[in-house]
Amino acid sequence: MRVFSTVQSMREWSDSCFRAGERIGFVPTMGCLHEGHMSLVRLAREMADVTVVSIFVNPTQFGPGEDFERYPRVLGSDLSMCEATGVDAVFTPAVSEMYAEDASTIVEEAAISRGMCGASRPGHFRGVATVVAKLFNIVKPAVAVFGRKDAQQLMVIKRMVRDLNFPVEIVAAPIVRESDGLAMSSRNRYLSADERMVALGINRALRWAEARYANGERSARSIAAGIGERISGGGVAVPEYVEVVAAEDMKPVSELGPGIMIAVAARVGATRLIDNVVLGVV
Amino acid sequence: MRVFSTVQSMREWSDSCFRAGERIGFVPTMGCLHEGHMSLVRLAREMADVTVVSIFVNPTQFGPGEDFERYPRVLGSDLSMCEATGVDAVFTPAVSEMYAEDASTIVEEAAISRGMCGASRPGHFRGVATVVAKLFNIVKPAVAVFGRKDAQQLMVIKRMVRDLNFPVEIVAAPIVRESDGLAMSSRNRYLSADERMVALGINRALRWAEARYANGERSARSIAAGIGERISGGGVAVPEYVEVVAAEDMKPVSELGPGIMIAVAARVGATRLIDNVVLGVV
Repeated sequence: MRVFSTVQSMREWSDSCFRAGERIGFVPTMGCLHEGHMSLVRLAREMADVTVVSIFVNPTQFGPGEDFERYPRVLGSDLSMCEATGVDAVFTPAVSEMYAEDASTIVEEAAISRGMCGASRPGHFRGVATVVAKLFNIVKPAVAVFGRKDAQQLMVIKRMVRDLNFPVEIVAAPIVRESDGLAMSSRNRYLSADERMVALGINRALRWAEARYANGERSARSIAAGIGERISGGGVAVPEYVEVVAAEDMKPVSELGPGIMIAVAARVGATRLIDNVVLGVV
Repeated sequence: MRVFSTVQSMREWSDSCFRAGERIGFVPTMGCLHEGHMSLVRLAREMADVTVVSIFVNPTQFGPGEDFERYPRVLGSDLSMCEATGVDAVFTPAVSEMYAEDASTIVEEAAISRGMCGASRPGHFRGVATVVAKLFNIVKPAVAVFGRKDAQQLMVIKRMVRDLNFPVEIVAAPIVRESDGLAMSSRNRYLSADERMVALGINRALRWAEARYANGERSARSIAAGIGERISGGGVAVPEYVEVVAAEDMKPVSELGPGIMIAVAARVGATRLIDNVVLGVV
């Protein structure tokens, strides 16, 4: 497995792959890799000839007071996981390699990114879109894989790729959960044992909503209220939003139905967690 | 010469060039080509193996009340000029091919683009940066050539390429002038015979400034005032701005010297014209 920390060395490797007719599959990450990331890597390996993982805790997608400084950085074990999963190259640049002191250009998506996490984390998706555009230009993937847990991020990236004509196919990977249902996240390691029990309530509330929907409930407002009550029931988790939206464009809808997403963000102690389900045909 | 009007056909051709090891030189234009554009094409041909010209009157870089509707479109003669100058492929998409109805992603440079034309044409450089990013992703050039007449545009694109890691070398081409000194521009054809005489005053004022500088003048304020008076002297031309800036970042300076740019925008009748000079060592 190759490890690159400069833009130039990464780009030269990618160019040599392209010239050799090899399609690059790409998984951008902030490191602290878990089984969710590895499921993206396996999907990328299926869809491409060589696989690149980037590990970069991107400062521009964190707001003031968020967890940029304490975001877990465990490069050694990340590299081991990548190697064990058959990754061909890891791109792990320093912040100074990615951003000039006087950087002044951004990429901004202004429709899908507005609500939900975009409303509670101003500038977050601008930082995400900008760094992903940069990574696409450096790594030059044919395919890039994003997880459905970050559902809004996935749709923002898809929109950016369409609008800016990036020559990259975006593939969505299913949410990977712990055996008790908690969606895998690098931030789960912030949780104390007690908080982790509380955090389970998020997925439990979503599964309650799915069951209600299967039993005929169609009111988005009623289901959102029920989820909010269930999450905050213990008093330790604070719902940030409960949204019922069309999965394709993140626009709020009033009626539940196939393809409708129920998305939740909540704080458990100091930790912000997100999760979602997409309703099927019943 | 190949002519492509869809993103997909252009991209397939570019990919086949890249696989064949051919470097693409690219000249993005809005058509109504003149000798200035052809000088860019010749430079691109020198620096690359194959040359692509795009012809696209980009609606998003025109403001309300500007000349998008009446901007001259003369595709037939544009194609003849391209063919005669050895262009390998022309990309000439419809607006609907370039922009989805619900397009919501922009690229914005927020430092170099702020003053000068950016101040008098709000949103202009956002439109330019966004369409050039799109064209780079479609055409995938190794080298792209921009003219120094649009000096601020050149520096905005250079900054965008650096900040977003586009794998494109940006080359600047000198201003090409008519024999009487008027900087070549597609908009010159808007000018009546009388207006054209007035328009000559713009370059004449810049040459006066160069002579004053050669004679020891070092005050940016005094030279800008003198240029403004000279341009508006006849009463028909209205200076929009006269700026004395560092050529690299378009930041205003107070003292003339080598590498300092004097840039002018003025209206002659309904026509907006720009011109500039960069001072040398005296």
